[in-house]
Amino acid sequence: MVVMSKNVFSNSSFFARYMELRKDLNHNDLLEHPEMMRLLGNIEGKSVLDLGCGSGSYAKEFISKGSSSYLGIDSSSLMIEKAKEDVKGDNISFRLLPLEKLGELSESFDIAYSSLVFHYIEDFEKLSKDIYNALNDNGVLLFSQMHPLLSATPAYQGYFLGDFFAFSSYQQEGRRDGKWFNEHVVSYHRRLSSIISTLSRSGFFVENVVEPIPSEEALMEFSKLQRDLVRPTFLIVKARKITSFSCS
Amino acid sequence: MVVMSKNVFSNSSFFARYMELRKDLNHNDLLEHPEMMRLLGNIEGKSVLDLGCGSGSYAKEFISKGSSSYLGIDSSSLMIEKAKEDVKGDNISFRLLPLEKLGELSESFDIAYSSLVFHYIEDFEKLSKDIYNALNDNGVLLFSQMHPLLSATPAYQGYFLGDFFAFSSYQQEGRRDGKWFNEHVVSYHRRLSSIISTLSRSGFFVENVVEPIPSEEALMEFSKLQRDLVRPTFLIVKARKITSFSCS
Repeated sequence: MVVMSKNVFSNSSFFARYMELRKDLNHNDLLEHPEMMRLLGNIEGKSVLDLGCGSGSYAKEFISKGSSSYLGIDSSSLMIEKAKEDVKGDNISFRLLPLEKLGELSESFDIAYSSLVFHYIEDFEKLSKDIYNALNDNGVLLFSQMHPLLSATPAYQGYFLGDFFAFSSYQQEGRRDGKWFNEHVVSYHRRLSSIISTLSRSGFFVENVVEPIPSEEALMEFSKLQRDLVRPTFLIVKARKITSFSCS
Repeated sequence: MVVMSKNVFSNSSFFARYMELRKDLNHNDLLEHPEMMRLLGNIEGKSVLDLGCGSGSYAKEFISKGSSSYLGIDSSSLMIEKAKEDVKGDNISFRLLPLEKLGELSESFDIAYSSLVFHYIEDFEKLSKDIYNALNDNGVLLFSQMHPLLSATPAYQGYFLGDFFAFSSYQQEGRRDGKWFNEHVVSYHRRLSSIISTLSRSGFFVENVVEPIPSEEALMEFSKLQRDLVRPTFLIVKARKITSFSCS
């Protein structure tokens, strides 16, 4: 996980280096993506909205798992162009739309999926409400983001001292400025408590919260995952749109 | 916050020292209790179960806030004896009962309240289900516990390096052995993700999760609270018993 601004993907020199990086197996492939797919469960006949789809690398996976349709949205024109070029298929579509403008979507969906994007969004309360409105009744929001323990420390992600992980400023939410590939990047730190409470306030039933732990196999593949035995890199949340409770 | 075994309160020398300590304003009085009372909201006419009531110091506060009845349970006979001796009033009662035997209670309640006790309980899944069963429909569970960032590190609670807080072993859940007043004490580390997911699995709608931040006034009173501007000492959760959702 790294800190990036949501606009850095529209910078072509960054884009090239990012695409190079994504060639090798990494944290996302070995830890985040398998856990997301496990939590997704059966999506037979479900319509999927991918929030911050990037180059659309997961579109075909959703369709192959039986989803009836896939729409990927992203704020980067370079990413959307690449997605449209590389990923073609029935019921697969891509649209240039920042998550901040989600309210402009007229369609509704059974599943809202988002991989490692929400920590770039400043207003999570608005995003949470917009997603709730874009979902059908009983629809599912499944997202991953940088874990708050990594987004807390200004400028970088804290540091290890032997088996200890040190961080600062967890209790201070808000903007964080950092660098990746020498690009200035912006993310937003929110505490785990705020993320869950915001979803509940928006009407979501938070079904599952996961701080992924690497498998033996993943640890063999990528030794850096040892760090995830001390502190999580990712936060993953599965929440359901509940329209009403029947309580006495 | 300190690590204590649930039985250490039945040790009379420990008990005396603990009672001495509780005379002065501390983290609990200035940070945990005010937040708990704020989250409690209106309890007019509600029946209250206090899980791990200790010496019953909050019983009268619940009654004065309008609750129709108060039952405090605790596993320490010394605490329950003291409570029965010191705290008398209509609709106030105390019972010697460990949380592990909550299932033996025949009554049901509108509110289950627990202050800084759950981190001593080994089986949170069972506790969560027992509380769900002890609540009336739409009943509320409000509890505080040691924050998982403090329960993670074996034997002690991590350490500060300037403005940084260092911890280890967050991802390894389970028993932690420590000392307080030279007494051997036992607590159980659970990750924040596990706590929320367990409550949801038990049928609770997690309404609010709080990692308390001290007020200006509290910081003046007790400078040690500065640490809570870096990392939380407490985790507080408010959850509601939902009997069924009406979803399409």
